[in-house]
Formats: sequence, C-alpha cells, structure tokens
Amino acid sequence: MASMIFTDCSSSTTPRLLRFRRNTLFHRNHGAVFLRPLISPTSPRRLSLHSSSASSSPSPSATASLATEASAAVIDGKGVAKQIRDEINAEVSKMKDAIGIVPGLAVILVGDRKDSATYVRNKKKACESVGIKSFEVRLPEDSSEREVLNSVGRFNDDPSVHGILVQLPLPSHMNEQNILNAVSIEKDVDGFHPLNIGRLAMRGRDPLFVPCTPKGCIELLHRYGIPIKGKRAVVIGRSNIVGTPAALLLQREDATISIVHSRTKNPEEITRQADIIISAVGQPNMVRGSWIKPGAVIIDVGINPVEDKKSPRGYRLVGDVCYEEASQIASAITPVPGGVGPMTIAMLLSNTLASSKRIHNFQ
Amino acid sequence: MASMIFTDCSSSTTPRLLRFRRNTLFHRNHGAVFLRPLISPTSPRRLSLHSSSASSSPSPSATASLATEASAAVIDGKGVAKQIRDEINAEVSKMKDAIGIVPGLAVILVGDRKDSATYVRNKKKACESVGIKSFEVRLPEDSSEREVLNSVGRFNDDPSVHGILVQLPLPSHMNEQNILNAVSIEKDVDGFHPLNIGRLAMRGRDPLFVPCTPKGCIELLHRYGIPIKGKRAVVIGRSNIVGTPAALLLQREDATISIVHSRTKNPEEITRQADIIISAVGQPNMVRGSWIKPGAVIIDVGINPVEDKKSPRGYRLVGDVCYEEASQIASAITPVPGGVGPMTIAMLLSNTLASSKRIHNFQ
Repeated sequence: MASMIFTDCSSSTTPRLLRFRRNTLFHRNHGAVFLRPLISPTSPRRLSLHSSSASSSPSPSATASLATEASAAVIDGKGVAKQIRDEINAEVSKMKDAIGIVPGLAVILVGDRKDSATYVRNKKKACESVGIKSFEVRLPEDSSEREVLNSVGRFNDDPSVHGILVQLPLPSHMNEQNILNAVSIEKDVDGFHPLNIGRLAMRGRDPLFVPCTPKGCIELLHRYGIPIKGKRAVVIGRSNIVGTPAALLLQREDATISIVHSRTKNPEEITRQADIIISAVGQPNMVRGSWIKPGAVIIDVGINPVEDKKSPRGYRLVGDVCYEEASQIASAITPVPGGVGPMTIAMLLSNTLASSKRIHNFQ
Repeated sequence: MASMIFTDCSSSTTPRLLRFRRNTLFHRNHGAVFLRPLISPTSPRRLSLHSSSASSSPSPSATASLATEASAAVIDGKGVAKQIRDEINAEVSKMKDAIGIVPGLAVILVGDRKDSATYVRNKKKACESVGIKSFEVRLPEDSSEREVLNSVGRFNDDPSVHGILVQLPLPSHMNEQNILNAVSIEKDVDGFHPLNIGRLAMRGRDPLFVPCTPKGCIELLHRYGIPIKGKRAVVIGRSNIVGTPAALLLQREDATISIVHSRTKNPEEITRQADIIISAVGQPNMVRGSWIKPGAVIIDVGINPVEDKKSPRGYRLVGDVCYEEASQIASAITPVPGGVGPMTIAMLLSNTLASSKRIHNFQ
C-alpha cells in the first residue's frame, strides 16, 4: 500500500464523458450502477455480463454509440463476499452434521503492530461468522525464530487445524522465508508456497491453494459471468501475492495476458488494449480514463489512503484506478472500498473449508 | 513438434522487402548475416547489439530508413553453444584438479523409441565432450513404474550423480508425474519441478535450475548483448517446458511480457508490438513478416520438419518463424537449425556443472 498522498483524479485533464443514463433497475452508488451477480453458485458460470445489463457496454463499437449515456456496472465485492460466506456457512454445517468435523484456521501473530492485530481480529471474526474454528498464538516482538517455528510445527501436527496463517510482517530479526516454508503445504491456505505457485503456472498441474486476493478477483469475474477465455487481460503489478498469481490464473482460463510493471515504458498504451484489467500496484488513481478501452472490465485491487480534509478521519480510501473517470468508460468496475477487499477474507475462509474437506476426504 | 506438413513461406502473399546490402565483414548464410557474440563471458553482458553492427536495425525509425538494405544479424546458436561447452570443459577440469570431483549426469531411458535413443546418445556424447561423466539405465518397455522409481531412487542416492534426466515420453502405463516428482529437487537439472517453476515465477526467490531451452534462449540474448530490461517481449506458446518459463525469465529481467497462445484472437497484432519475440509452438512458418516490428529480435524455438522433395531425406527443418521474411525485418534472428537447438544440450551441461558445484560447495 502506498503511503498517504494527496491525489484527486477529479482535477484530471482527461476529458470526462457524460453521465450515465438513469436506470431504475439498478441501485446507484458513486455515479455508477450496482449490478447483481448474474448467477447463483449452482448456475452455469459463463453467462455474459452484457446480455442482461442495458447499462453496460458490450463492445468498443457498441460503446462508442452509447458513450454519451453509458456507465459501468459496479461489481459488488461486498455483496458477493457475503454470498460466499453464506455458502461456506452452509457447507461447514453440512460437514459437521455428516462427519463431525469443523474446519480450523490458525493464526500466528508476532509483536504488537496495531494493523496486524486488526487484521487478525477481523479474520477471527470472519471465521466465527461462518462456523470455522479459529486458533491464535500471540508471541512477543522479541521472540526467537525458533519459538515461531515451534508454533508453526504444533499447528502442522494439530489435526483440528486445516489452515495456518503467519501474519506478516514478522519482526526484522526473523527470516520470513524460513518461517513461511515451515508451514505444511497441505495447510498453506495463503497459497504463497513456491510449490503452489509453480503448480499454478504449469499446465496439467493444480495448486492445493490459490492465493486469496487473486482468487477473489477471478471469482468476481466468474460470479458476474464475465467471459475470460480469448480475452486480452492486462495485469498491472507483478507482486508474488497478487499480480503474478492473478496473471497465471487468467492464463489458466485462456486469456491472453500482458503484465505491466514499474519498468514498463508505455503502460497506458498496453493497458488500453485490455478487455480485462486487474490493477494491484498501490498507486492511488494511477490508471486514468485514457488508459481504458471502452467496455473493459476493471478489477481494482489497490486500497490507498489519500488526504481528504472533508473526511472526519482526514483521509479516504481510493483504488489504483481513477474511479470517476473509469466508471464512465468501463463496462464494469469494482469500487474501493467494497470491491476486491471483502473478497480476500472470503477466499481465505473458502481455502480453509477446501483444506478440511481434502484432509477428511469429504465431498 | 508438429507432424510433417508441406509449408513454404516463399509462396507468401506478404510483400518481401529487398535483399540486404552486401557486407564483407559478415559471413553470409541463408540470405542473412552471421554476427559474432559481442561479448566474452567475462565481459559485461549488457552491450548493445546495435551499437557495433552496421547491418542491424537499431530502432523502428532507423529501420524504416534502412529498409531497402537492412538484413537481420544471425544469432549463431551453434557457435555460442560450442563456446559454452568449451567454458564448461575448462570449469570441469578446474573442479577436478581442485577437489577431485567430476560432475555426473544420469539418464533413464525406458522402451525402444528410436528418437529417444538418439536424444540419449547425443546427451551422452555431449557429456563426454566436456568431461562430464554420464550414467545410463535402459529399461524395457514393459517395466513397472516401481522399477523406474527404483532407478530414480538409486541415482538420487548416488553421490557421483549430480543431475538426473528421465527421457520422455515414458510408456503409457506409467504415471509420468509420479516418476518426475521422484527426482530429487537438487538433481532436477531439467528444472521442470513445480517448486523450481514456482521459484522462477516469484520475486525474491531463485530456482535451483532453470529449464534448459528457455535458459538457452535468454543466454543467446545475453551473449549478443541484446537488452531485455524495459523491452516489450512476446512469447508465442505457453508450454511448461519452453513458453511459460521463457516468459517468467524475461519478466525477471524486467521485460514487459505478453503470452500469445492458441486461444489468442489477434496473435499477429500483439506480436507486432514486440521488441523481442520468442516463439515455441511447433507450427512451421507461422510467424510471418507481417507479425514482426522492424528491428525486433527473434528467438525461434520451433524445429519443424516440412516436406522438401529436393532434400535427399525428403524433408527439411524449419522454425515457427518464416525465416526468409523475418530476416529482412528483424534486427537479429536465430536460424533453424543451428539457433536455439544446440543451446538446449549446452544448458543441460551447464545445469549439471552448476549442480555439482552447489552440492560440493565449489565456487
């Protein structure tokens, strides 16, 4: 995440398109329209977003003619995450009733960082809300690497634990890689183990777990019936935890991927070719309207605090994408907050459930 | 590799550019010029190919003005591979003299396939030529998976073996993945283990081995001083053994990568944006002149037999790229044969040497 800076894309020099047409079918928010997921989890996943949304922009040519009235559908990550948690809750109950097993997620927190404590608390609450048992170990800042490794080892051996998370960052005197490598591959619900990433990259192989945030991005595309196969996809950012696995996931679904990063000379030109954009760089409002092909679908992973004197907190959260501009050009877009953010924890719960099912061979 | 089909890109409808200017500085071959590697292994690797070759095309704009006289430099894989083998030979002698250790490569061959037997024979000869000891086990076609696993196990435990290759394909009654997974990660000189591929994909991680063919492609770029950082690179093909690792390697060197594959709708348009093209699809002459940006560098991994009544064998080998057209547009290109092909075995020897150095902690 970028440090807080002042950025306001409403002061853009990029010409703004006219506002969207009013459409009472959709709940409006932030100058765009909320679109419900087109499919329930039991429906086929490949319905077209465009076929049932009068306000979306099916193709560049169609968009051109609609440009004066089009506005992006809002991809409601918060709503989808809620739906997924309800589904997980139902499955947890079903497994408990059938075989008496409750999925368990263990978190190891080292030190006193307030943000880390908040993340851990949120994960714990999320577990409780779906019936997943949570385990927690808190170790003091001055713990030795050996003590952390011992905690990992105990959770590796504990049959009631199906997923293990080591909250990052760890204190600087520890070797993060040693500790993460110690987590059993069968319980690595974060999906960051190189063996998982390798399997994700390879055709004919399947990872045990897919990293939560990129999995959440693809899940949003699926739930909104947005086709991926044969589409041009540009991923902005090449981090191990979002950009790279997101690109690998898109390629697994037969998208043609390009990965834009800090050394890319013409990011705007490349991004403008994309049917699907996933941005995960932590640069507030970096992706402007001029970067976006009309009708593109935008998944904005960035959550960046920017100064806002009107806010009681003195700041507000914005994405990597200038929402105000993008929502007038794209066919669908995730808001920040309320887009990808809530999906990450939902996917963590999903991975933990999947792990317990695999370990106990429960379908 | 594609099955043999009749393809002749000289019957192209793509307009051919005029022939290159005569230049006695270069050894001419196949309508192009051979360029020597600009750097010895001890020199800095980032010299510009363009700065010292009058016949190459430094940039699209420069190329445009030179179009009537430009021709691609030939990237002489055969010559570079020879140079690398000489270097390996010297290093093997040095290690033997210093610590008495000779690198060892073991190959397991199951069944009677003639092509496999030829590959194994070539690998053995290559080992001998550089002083690497080769080990070989031949098992009958009807061997059990257990018998093959036992051979793998013996080589895993044998301290004089530093690299293990299982020649593919295996007979169909065996689980190839089980057998490949049994090869010790420290001796997986093919670099195909998912853990290696995962490390290759991740920032801040390093694979123990890089797969030989893509490593050979990048080595050619290095030895010819072709800059990669910040360049647009298009990889055609997404196989586990070439396309995917080649893209990951290019990205590790800060190229902006796009991966074109069978589901890509506009491969020509995307490829035409590339400064560097690596093609590995096994489609003879698929990449035409119109796919290539003037001045691009082309690494052609394809080795495809096409019918040729004039040849005593009835066929000849061509690449994925229509050489005749491409060599008039690109700034540098690998020929087929004699380009990437000889690099693969050279990189296998290099990986085996590196493995023995690592195991014996010899710098």
